[in-house]
Amino acid sequence: MLNFRNDYSSAAHPVVMDALIHAGFQQTPGYGADPFCQEAADNIRALCNCPGGAVHFLVGGTQVNKTAIAAFLRPYEAVIAASTAHICCHETGAVEQDGHKIIACPAPDGKLTPDMVRSVVSSHDSEHTVLPRLLYVSNTTELGTVYSLPELQALRRVADELKLYLYCDGARLGSAIAAGDAALPDYAALCDAFTIGGTKNGLLFGEALVIANPALQPGFRHCMKQQGAILAKGQLLGIQFNAILEDGRYFQLAAEANRLARRLTEGLRERNVPFLADSPSNQVFPILPDKVVKALAKEVAFEVQQRVDESHTCIRFVTAWDTGSDAVEQLLALLGRLLG
Amino acid sequence: MLNFRNDYSSAAHPVVMDALIHAGFQQTPGYGADPFCQEAADNIRALCNCPGGAVHFLVGGTQVNKTAIAAFLRPYEAVIAASTAHICCHETGAVEQDGHKIIACPAPDGKLTPDMVRSVVSSHDSEHTVLPRLLYVSNTTELGTVYSLPELQALRRVADELKLYLYCDGARLGSAIAAGDAALPDYAALCDAFTIGGTKNGLLFGEALVIANPALQPGFRHCMKQQGAILAKGQLLGIQFNAILEDGRYFQLAAEANRLARRLTEGLRERNVPFLADSPSNQVFPILPDKVVKALAKEVAFEVQQRVDESHTCIRFVTAWDTGSDAVEQLLALLGRLLG
Amino acid sequence: MLNFRNDYSSAAHPVVMDALIHAGFQQTPGYGADPFCQEAADNIRALCNCPGGAVHFLVGGTQVNKTAIAAFLRPYEAVIAASTAHICCHETGAVEQDGHKIIACPAPDGKLTPDMVRSVVSSHDSEHTVLPRLLYVSNTTELGTVYSLPELQALRRVADELKLYLYCDGARLGSAIAAGDAALPDYAALCDAFTIGGTKNGLLFGEALVIANPALQPGFRHCMKQQGAILAKGQLLGIQFNAILEDGRYFQLAAEANRLARRLTEGLRERNVPFLADSPSNQVFPILPDKVVKALAKEVAFEVQQRVDESHTCIRFVTAWDTGSDAVEQLLALLGRLLG
Amino acid sequence: MLNFRNDYSSAAHPVVMDALIHAGFQQTPGYGADPFCQEAADNIRALCNCPGGAVHFLVGGTQVNKTAIAAFLRPYEAVIAASTAHICCHETGAVEQDGHKIIACPAPDGKLTPDMVRSVVSSHDSEHTVLPRLLYVSNTTELGTVYSLPELQALRRVADELKLYLYCDGARLGSAIAAGDAALPDYAALCDAFTIGGTKNGLLFGEALVIANPALQPGFRHCMKQQGAILAKGQLLGIQFNAILEDGRYFQLAAEANRLARRLTEGLRERNVPFLADSPSNQVFPILPDKVVKALAKEVAFEVQQRVDESHTCIRFVTAWDTGSDAVEQLLALLGRLLG
Repeated sequence: MLNFRNDYSSAAHPVVMDALIHAGFQQTPGYGADPFCQEAADNIRALCNCPGGAVHFLVGGTQVNKTAIAAFLRPYEAVIAASTAHICCHETGAVEQDGHKIIACPAPDGKLTPDMVRSVVSSHDSEHTVLPRLLYVSNTTELGTVYSLPELQALRRVADELKLYLYCDGARLGSAIAAGDAALPDYAALCDAFTIGGTKNGLLFGEALVIANPALQPGFRHCMKQQGAILAKGQLLGIQFNAILEDGRYFQLAAEANRLARRLTEGLRERNVPFLADSPSNQVFPILPDKVVKALAKEVAFEVQQRVDESHTCIRFVTAWDTGSDAVEQLLALLGRLLG
Repeated sequence: MLNFRNDYSSAAHPVVMDALIHAGFQQTPGYGADPFCQEAADNIRALCNCPGGAVHFLVGGTQVNKTAIAAFLRPYEAVIAASTAHICCHETGAVEQDGHKIIACPAPDGKLTPDMVRSVVSSHDSEHTVLPRLLYVSNTTELGTVYSLPELQALRRVADELKLYLYCDGARLGSAIAAGDAALPDYAALCDAFTIGGTKNGLLFGEALVIANPALQPGFRHCMKQQGAILAKGQLLGIQFNAILEDGRYFQLAAEANRLARRLTEGLRERNVPFLADSPSNQVFPILPDKVVKALAKEVAFEVQQRVDESHTCIRFVTAWDTGSDAVEQLLALLGRLLG
Repeated sequence: MLNFRNDYSSAAHPVVMDALIHAGFQQTPGYGADPFCQEAADNIRALCNCPGGAVHFLVGGTQVNKTAIAAFLRPYEAVIAASTAHICCHETGAVEQDGHKIIACPAPDGKLTPDMVRSVVSSHDSEHTVLPRLLYVSNTTELGTVYSLPELQALRRVADELKLYLYCDGARLGSAIAAGDAALPDYAALCDAFTIGGTKNGLLFGEALVIANPALQPGFRHCMKQQGAILAKGQLLGIQFNAILEDGRYFQLAAEANRLARRLTEGLRERNVPFLADSPSNQVFPILPDKVVKALAKEVAFEVQQRVDESHTCIRFVTAWDTGSDAVEQLLALLGRLLG
Repeated sequence: MLNFRNDYSSAAHPVVMDALIHAGFQQTPGYGADPFCQEAADNIRALCNCPGGAVHFLVGGTQVNKTAIAAFLRPYEAVIAASTAHICCHETGAVEQDGHKIIACPAPDGKLTPDMVRSVVSSHDSEHTVLPRLLYVSNTTELGTVYSLPELQALRRVADELKLYLYCDGARLGSAIAAGDAALPDYAALCDAFTIGGTKNGLLFGEALVIANPALQPGFRHCMKQQGAILAKGQLLGIQFNAILEDGRYFQLAAEANRLARRLTEGLRERNVPFLADSPSNQVFPILPDKVVKALAKEVAFEVQQRVDESHTCIRFVTAWDTGSDAVEQLLALLGRLLG
């Protein structure tokens, strides 16, 4: 069975596993107060050119989104997000569970725009409505699209103008950076906070949260603990991030995943397959005849995104650093046969 | 200044004020444990033909929606509502504050349909999504439209099929019943719970909640207290409801408000004014040229609903039991002049 | 049946009822945006000598405590309160429902002391514990005792030292002021926020919240709405507070209630009845033989506070502005007979 | 530096690390839907003699306590716990953050008794109080003490009588079982739910939750996801639990930790050192002169529990499966010198 289902089916990259085995656990008070986490935080601050940033390590993506948003907002403050956003659709109401409404904006390509933001803010203008306060973007988006640097800058400007925070869910930030024109220091300069996802790019688990805005830093460790989001053996996170960030490996892995996805996209385009959105990253959303989808499912693992019309379905292929060119070519060959 | 802004600007109907003054307060333990509330609850059970219903009296509409939904749902369960629903737009995220997501369905006339419900449920199918569990309808809706009895019956059927609760926000239930074909016993038979609004139809304040579904009844008084929603001098609520429900007065007041709105609608139609939605109830949503709206605002109090196009705006006129025919005729005369 | 059960069994004081009947309702946008509430807020600011205070009117006591604490604290911040505090015992976990822990301090007389506060703060010193942030005091306390001005000043000092807020639940503030040496301007000067209770001292309902600390003022109306705590016909609150605050009537009513309680206390002391706590206010907590309590219950309404030993029970008598000397004398006579 | 600070400073037991390295990751949908978790759940059901139990794997202790309690209780339901309970003191209000009050019972040895439970329930008897619904016990307790089988049976009886759930936090369940007379099937028979802690007994991380009561099973995966408590690469948990549970290794490690603690206790007793509580498990709480504590801190890592009197402090020594006899003997020798 070929696996294009997701990018978190593999164990960690060998250097990460190696580091975990050989790092030499230290006797520490635990909970992230250890030299490995300290070093990883310093690494990230340096890579982000953000010496004043607070860096925290959490285990998972829903956990970090939920904890950050709960920490940053007052009770009546709300999130603006694309309607396809992970926090809208696939986190079981985790943000709402902590009391915050998410105002969902229909966005065909999964991206928020300044116009959407302005429209939401202008219609939330009294104490009878929530107060929009935080822009949630994910990069790459849930449709594989990537915010460009000018797009992020435009969101920052509207955020400044309307007194909003800009938060970037970087579960696939490596892929976004490898595919786009914004680098880590841009994220630190433009976002109040953002995450650097490890789970989907070489780690066993782990998301680094960078809180660039000093006003949002106090009390965050308390919030983490309250959410059950401090790992007892915190050094596991520091060790892994140190290993993956060394020598640019994090971005090399992401670039490889993107490369495989690009090859897949090209092959599909050659066969005149249309796409739900134009993705330069490691998630690809082809629209295929239902009978092809059905036949494909016998030999390939993938996820169904949505029905498109009576006879077509959009599915998702995801590549990862360890997918390999062979698997991509096999998939394309199979699709060639099925598409006849 | 003519007032068509809302239906809660007046004090109570004279019989209600009279009852409050002369009822003869009783020395009771308070908090709704008094003979007036007991009598009002019995009245409502009788009017609803629902001997097994639990009846609670709360002060306000947001309070009762919030308390009921928090009481009925488990943490990961969500509400389905029209995107214009009061709980979506005008309750400052009260439902989310208690942890529950509202899934908003675009609905041009403010009404949920079985198809919308099915579509939502079918796309929320794993533990990574919230579980839709409660249908929130308001009758009349926020656009003045009214669910018919067959429409409510169809929602009940889809609710049964998909294991959902049906909850009706009856802040303007009097107007809906006076304008439609569903009566109190229909609500008790079709809804798991619904409210009978007093604030907008003759009371100083007060919403009666009828919990028809026995499974949702236990613990509700605890939830009320926890939400700060038990009035210390609870008899104030019982006294008022007894007065307004006597001799069908509640429905007479609502019918009068509807009659005035209908006259207003007819007058506007004669002047070829279009409407946002077709309202048989006491809220009317004409679409007027901006310059008319601007001129009108100098002599009439009303609310702006939304911009419709570059030169037109939809506004809202609300009538109440005490608006009076004179005010309606004055408004129509003024509109006649302004519309030229 | 003599009623010493509570101080919220009566309707409003006649001048308040009169004001409600004759005030002349105004057509306003509602929700507290009306001239009556504006006037009442100005009155309160003047009486408190607190021109920069924000004043809000809410319906009930649990509602105002819950809304204020939820508005003031970040998620991991906690409340310190006496273990007898109303928010600890009799509000069904309303504060916890909004996410905040209450750290309860055993306090024989119902009062927090600086030593208790210091002890709590010193034992909550890492991100693994909540962060104590708000001191909740009630004046009068739930045991009828009254904080003196020096006691409140001492709490303010410790609050300043440890960066805590001081919040005073004034459900019975009239009684506390009438019995003590701290006046309204003292509360405004010492507390970050406090309430002036109307429900138990002459109103049908209504608690005024004074937020003296400007840092706690922003967004409060949003929090109120989110909690279902904005009354649609808000002018009902402004009208009542204006009536009761005129000419010092609020304090006259409280003084009368205290006077009756004092008479009751003296009469009980003459009969050598011991008390749970030494109350100068309108709640009295005598400890009586069980058989007396049982016999008393046939002719007097009161509440049982707690068992004291195998044969004695502490009960609560509450007086109000309308209890009347006759009732007190009848109660004393009855007790005289029962105590033999 | 000798380490007696905690039992989560080490990496995993070698067999667990080995399993992680060699297990052979499988391409699965992730999130715990994998054969390793399935096998581990089956193993646990078999070991517990609880074929109908639901078994879930979570990463950390606070996370599992918080998620379980939020899932099991309705909004106004509360937890009864010893005042030393981990959820009371060291989880930053995680349970309250989800809306539930914890009623703390002073308990010198860290254990709840039926009498405490009865007393709490009898004083929470109206809608003005929370409703006690879940007994939280930890075994071993936070003071190192261990509930015996008869004690657990007595709690079950009072739980049945008063309609309460019994939940056991087994972060150190291995140690409790190795030191006591209750075995896994007893926990499954007596508790509605309990955890089997891995973090402190051989795993990198991981707590298994067994929900024995079928009524509490539905919807739990939704609650996990909502709390950010489903690990993307869930097989990491299954792999580890399978390794540690094989051939009774889990209990062997715990027995070794207990043995070392017992040796330490004996050595301290020989030197006439008193203890805060009588611990048969892997946490020991000696009371030492302040000057000894101060000197000790230069060579040994440990935690301070509390001040006992003006010149004595209770500290905590924790042993683990890998502490080793040498370290214990060195510590005893050092203490011998310091105690003179």
